[in-house]
Amino acid sequence: MAARLSVKQDYESLLDKYDTWLFDCDGVLWEGDRLIDGAIEVLQLLREKKKSVLFVTNNATKSRKSYKTKFDKLGVEAHVDEIFGSAFASAVYISSVLKLPKDKKVYVIGMSGIEEELKEEGISYIGGTDPADYTLEPFSLANFTPDPSVGAVLCGLDTAINYTKLSKAFQYLIRNPGCAFLATNEDSTYPAADGLLPGAGSISAPLRYAYAKDPISIGKPNGTMLECIKAKHDFDPKRTLMIGDRLNTDIQFGKNGGLDTLLVLTGITKEEEITGPNASPIIPDYVTKSLGDLRILKS
Amino acid sequence: MAARLSVKQDYESLLDKYDTWLFDCDGVLWEGDRLIDGAIEVLQLLREKKKSVLFVTNNATKSRKSYKTKFDKLGVEAHVDEIFGSAFASAVYISSVLKLPKDKKVYVIGMSGIEEELKEEGISYIGGTDPADYTLEPFSLANFTPDPSVGAVLCGLDTAINYTKLSKAFQYLIRNPGCAFLATNEDSTYPAADGLLPGAGSISAPLRYAYAKDPISIGKPNGTMLECIKAKHDFDPKRTLMIGDRLNTDIQFGKNGGLDTLLVLTGITKEEEITGPNASPIIPDYVTKSLGDLRILKS
Repeated sequence: MAARLSVKQDYESLLDKYDTWLFDCDGVLWEGDRLIDGAIEVLQLLREKKKSVLFVTNNATKSRKSYKTKFDKLGVEAHVDEIFGSAFASAVYISSVLKLPKDKKVYVIGMSGIEEELKEEGISYIGGTDPADYTLEPFSLANFTPDPSVGAVLCGLDTAINYTKLSKAFQYLIRNPGCAFLATNEDSTYPAADGLLPGAGSISAPLRYAYAKDPISIGKPNGTMLECIKAKHDFDPKRTLMIGDRLNTDIQFGKNGGLDTLLVLTGITKEEEITGPNASPIIPDYVTKSLGDLRILKS
Repeated sequence: MAARLSVKQDYESLLDKYDTWLFDCDGVLWEGDRLIDGAIEVLQLLREKKKSVLFVTNNATKSRKSYKTKFDKLGVEAHVDEIFGSAFASAVYISSVLKLPKDKKVYVIGMSGIEEELKEEGISYIGGTDPADYTLEPFSLANFTPDPSVGAVLCGLDTAINYTKLSKAFQYLIRNPGCAFLATNEDSTYPAADGLLPGAGSISAPLRYAYAKDPISIGKPNGTMLECIKAKHDFDPKRTLMIGDRLNTDIQFGKNGGLDTLLVLTGITKEEEITGPNASPIIPDYVTKSLGDLRILKS
């Protein structure tokens, strides 16, 4: 059973035990554009205590650079090299693990964040925010000339998802021999400011269903993201805490990487999912209501 | 193992054994707008032999009336009361089985076929082809006023699928108590004139994934469609043949209804799916390459 943090001593012992603090963002630091109460003070406190603070997000709609802009806008201190997103991790995966040849391209379902990270990694792509794919007109195979150099389909959250994008991606999967099927992440939903909306996993769901195969998913809980972090930061997994709002991504990610985990209840996971007879089998090491609870350390 | 029809005698014995012939359309009579060679002559021959000919399609983009127009355009004799589509069956299901109260509405993801059949059945609906939902603009919950009278979400093939439609449907499923989750059918793909495209099941896949529940699927292989046919036509299941191109919908539908089945190979199912070590466990009674093969009966 998860340890419920409640008194000042509980939080002080966290501070003693962990040098590196990995934060999920949506549902932990903010919901949509609304900051979680106390998040800024708690991050400041950790920095004052010389903790390493890293941000690990499955959100692939933004590149690390544009994610930094979001931190700035909300007044949260963050540096680009502290931010790890699933778009970045996907680009690293394509070049380092998949080793997509330089003459091959990626067909992207997703937003500018994926495009920016692919560009940074020197990977060619088509689709994405291409105006030609921004259409609700019926898709006709007769008017479609598939690009034989597409060697991977990468699918992330895309709020401009449409039948043309799905049809093109599907054609590449079934027509181009060896075409890889990748997803930035498989979150079924995401916590917007005013409630839940379909997440990246819901955007790749049509392809998964039509193609009858699951994509390789790069983001949390997959270990690829942790490999990306390890390549840039030294840390001792035993003294590292993963903080998140979602059991099957954040907490599972921490567990897969041998990290201790702290669940907050300001996002996806609700109290009833961690207690009672229907509790999830994914059990965090610690639970607290909100990241803001750590402000008790300042008192 | 399925009996492979090859000589005239094989086809003659079919003619003797079955009085009612149920036809799937896409992949059996036509692919997209291209007729299967010989389909018209074979249907004429069956009518001359006083066979009952019925058309049973999962295609929910058209109402029975507009489906009739497609038959007319391709020069295939058909009468509206011989056509059974999953849009029609869905409307019948909503009024007769679900018994949706008259003050409740259906939120539709789908095309005009569903709307027309709901209208015919006196069922109120929103969504569908409403221009307000024909948009690729980002969806914001802040600007969305959910309609508390929505008591069901019905999802069919929609080539104008977009994030606004998916988000609204998802909100109704999670917010409106008791909201039913229905799909016209769950075909993963459909055979267009020039190849496979994502089918109705791929359009409902995001909702299935985000909501973590499967819809009630109305079309083949579900028995609802057969109930609709039985309500309008007398037939002896023992002397009825279901002809289709898809094992997990058409052939399974026939089997579920106690009908004999004939698989044609002009659509989805390929030779290797019915022979060899990886053959499907769904075994039709008969197989022939194409419906046109029955022209041998005229020679």
